Amino acid sequence: MDALEIMTNLHLVAPFYQAVFSADEHKVVGYEVLGRIKYEDEYKSLGPFFHDEAIPEEYRIEVDDLLLHMALDHFITLDKQPYIFMNRDANLLMIDHGESLLNLLLKYQDKGLILNKVVIELTEHNFIGDLERLNHLITYYRTYGIKIAVDNIGKESSNFDRIGLLNPDILKIDLKELLKTTTGQAYHDVLYSISLLARKIGATLLYEDVETLFQLQYAWKNGGRYYQGYFLHKPSSELVCDEVMKEKLKEETLHFIQHEKKKLFSVYDLSEQLNIKLQGLVQKYKKVDNYNELITYLSQNLGELSFRLYVCDDYGFQQSANIIKEEEKWSLKEEYYMKNWSWRPYFLENIVRMKYNKKGILSDLYSDVESGENIRTFSYPLNEKDYLFIDIPYEFLFEHDGLL
Amino acid sequence: MDALEIMTNLHLVAPFYQAVFSADEHKVVGYEVLGRIKYEDEYKSLGPFFHDEAIPEEYRIEVDDLLLHMALDHFITLDKQPYIFMNRDANLLMIDHGESLLNLLLKYQDKGLILNKVVIELTEHNFIGDLERLNHLITYYRTYGIKIAVDNIGKESSNFDRIGLLNPDILKIDLKELLKTTTGQAYHDVLYSISLLARKIGATLLYEDVETLFQLQYAWKNGGRYYQGYFLHKPSSELVCDEVMKEKLKEETLHFIQHEKKKLFSVYDLSEQLNIKLQGLVQKYKKVDNYNELITYLSQNLGELSFRLYVCDDYGFQQSANIIKEEEKWSLKEEYYMKNWSWRPYFLENIVRMKYNKKGILSDLYSDVESGENIRTFSYPLNEKDYLFIDIPYEFLFEHDGLL
Repeated sequence: MDALEIMTNLHLVAPFYQAVFSADEHKVVGYEVLGRIKYEDEYKSLGPFFHDEAIPEEYRIEVDDLLLHMALDHFITLDKQPYIFMNRDANLLMIDHGESLLNLLLKYQDKGLILNKVVIELTEHNFIGDLERLNHLITYYRTYGIKIAVDNIGKESSNFDRIGLLNPDILKIDLKELLKTTTGQAYHDVLYSISLLARKIGATLLYEDVETLFQLQYAWKNGGRYYQGYFLHKPSSELVCDEVMKEKLKEETLHFIQHEKKKLFSVYDLSEQLNIKLQGLVQKYKKVDNYNELITYLSQNLGELSFRLYVCDDYGFQQSANIIKEEEKWSLKEEYYMKNWSWRPYFLENIVRMKYNKKGILSDLYSDVESGENIRTFSYPLNEKDYLFIDIPYEFLFEHDGLL
Repeated sequence: MDALEIMTNLHLVAPFYQAVFSADEHKVVGYEVLGRIKYEDEYKSLGPFFHDEAIPEEYRIEVDDLLLHMALDHFITLDKQPYIFMNRDANLLMIDHGESLLNLLLKYQDKGLILNKVVIELTEHNFIGDLERLNHLITYYRTYGIKIAVDNIGKESSNFDRIGLLNPDILKIDLKELLKTTTGQAYHDVLYSISLLARKIGATLLYEDVETLFQLQYAWKNGGRYYQGYFLHKPSSELVCDEVMKEKLKEETLHFIQHEKKKLFSVYDLSEQLNIKLQGLVQKYKKVDNYNELITYLSQNLGELSFRLYVCDDYGFQQSANIIKEEEKWSLKEEYYMKNWSWRPYFLENIVRMKYNKKGILSDLYSDVESGENIRTFSYPLNEKDYLFIDIPYEFLFEHDGLL
């Protein structure tokens, strides 16, 4: 159907609803409103119509408003109002500085709409206006309790800057990428970073396009509080029972938790083993003359467990050379002596933690700048001032369950 | 000078060098090559010329190549070759799929250029080509040891997606934003997240436009290994002594470390105090009938230290209501009972850590989703299965040194 056919058949337009599930209650917490049109007894998506910028703005706004009226008329009749997620193109919204939408919402507020259950999903990646002005509008909307979601996070169109400036309540991430065979480690690292960013700025993560159990697990593991997708619920003209997936979601989450805890226990077990092992070894070699001698002895005792060792003081200045395993042979690299590592994320935090707890710490998995490999580092307090660092190679982690 | 004047005065074009300093050695590790032209006895930047897309590509490529030749001729005469950072517009680079640049570099390799000291700074924010093909080119360059830097990270133009796809060796972040009065908390959170992302993917952070001591401290604190800017060194036609800033950088870094450690100690001191306090309180109230009663007693004892308490089991299911302070009065919110929080970042990690260490943990600063305030959470093991969570309000953290 082309644009004109749609405009002359507005009586065939209807809102569809796709349920949004929450990880804390395993219930439906809201619905995204999607546009559909009945054509030859089937409902077709109006997505292409809304995204076609060749279609006059007035047409798109008219259909958008029609859908919204129909959806809001429905929502205000409900006993307990769920969140209503409505899509708005930032360019169209800014034509009248968001006034008509706000007036519409305020009119419905008089009829019983709860404004802090309204979420406006801004499509802003092709936004051509002034971001500052959009930000002012959003701030104004927020004074009414209206929430703002930004979509396409983690994709080409969205970026750190906008997240920082618009400070959205909800970040929406689609998980299509996850099903590609080309998905690299960096993609996972990016999503993990976004989950930490969301926590820092107090934004809620909504994962969409969840079509498989694996994607659901991934969303859960990466800080997702809200989920949406065919795996959970297909868009339909009717709302569903809040608890339609409660048992299933709870059951799957229990599996996710068990799996994750098992991995975490593996990491802690290794950490405990290394603490015991190091206590023994450091005691055994306590009479060595200097740290280069110590790390040389240790390297011979640690076997496959390490490919690099060094000692730093509590200011991050290296107090030994590096000893590095290259082609099965260990060698001392003197040029590392007195290098400073205090600028590295977590470095000083870990020093202070070791000072208090008098125990070594096994790091998370991260990419070694020099080798590019995924490694972990075990750090261990030698005394009040100096700390040993043991870099554990990928192969060791790979060969032991739960360490990757 | 307009483009034609520049093209007819190529004998006046000269490379300038801006030193890049490293945080681990406090020495100059390399130089960015910048284009200048002598005009009325002064050197003017060629930046506007290079960024003007109205100027024919051949012109810009010709001047770029001229500068590069001059710089490389200089670099190959040096005893110990530093990193050489060269800017390339991704669009211009892709015209011949990067062939001419690679040939140029290989020619200089024969004359003594060390290719793994070459860093290509890609300007890719206005890149109009196929990102996949650019990625292939980068991968090919990398096989020669050439490094790739991507600039404008944290600004409008750069985004998670590209970082994930291009997997650069160096992320370049400018700190101009930091001097604006409008810089919000979200900006800091974004940069912090980028520093963690860089660590995860094994990329090195280079902070540029460092013009004040405060910016240097900020760069150090946010994972910056390389720094560049007028505060450290102005671009000049000559290279400088490696150690020109060594003493100053070391001295300032010592101050940064002391300041940071003091803050970290404050956090640990509070954590230790809370552990002792909670041990006493939990012992005192060990005969209560249920967790709602326990958190009610605790809320009365904790005073200004908390605004919200609850208990979760080791699967993240809430085993109590929330008790929340609203307008100086505490009230129980039963609807939180049995909500699940296992999806939150760090939740299960912290449960496992408490299980092993039998001690409470004070979290980092993060933004509370409900109140939007910056808070910390103290979590405490009540027994093998259940854990107490105490949310500490912004006001308390604000009134105590080193907790924000």
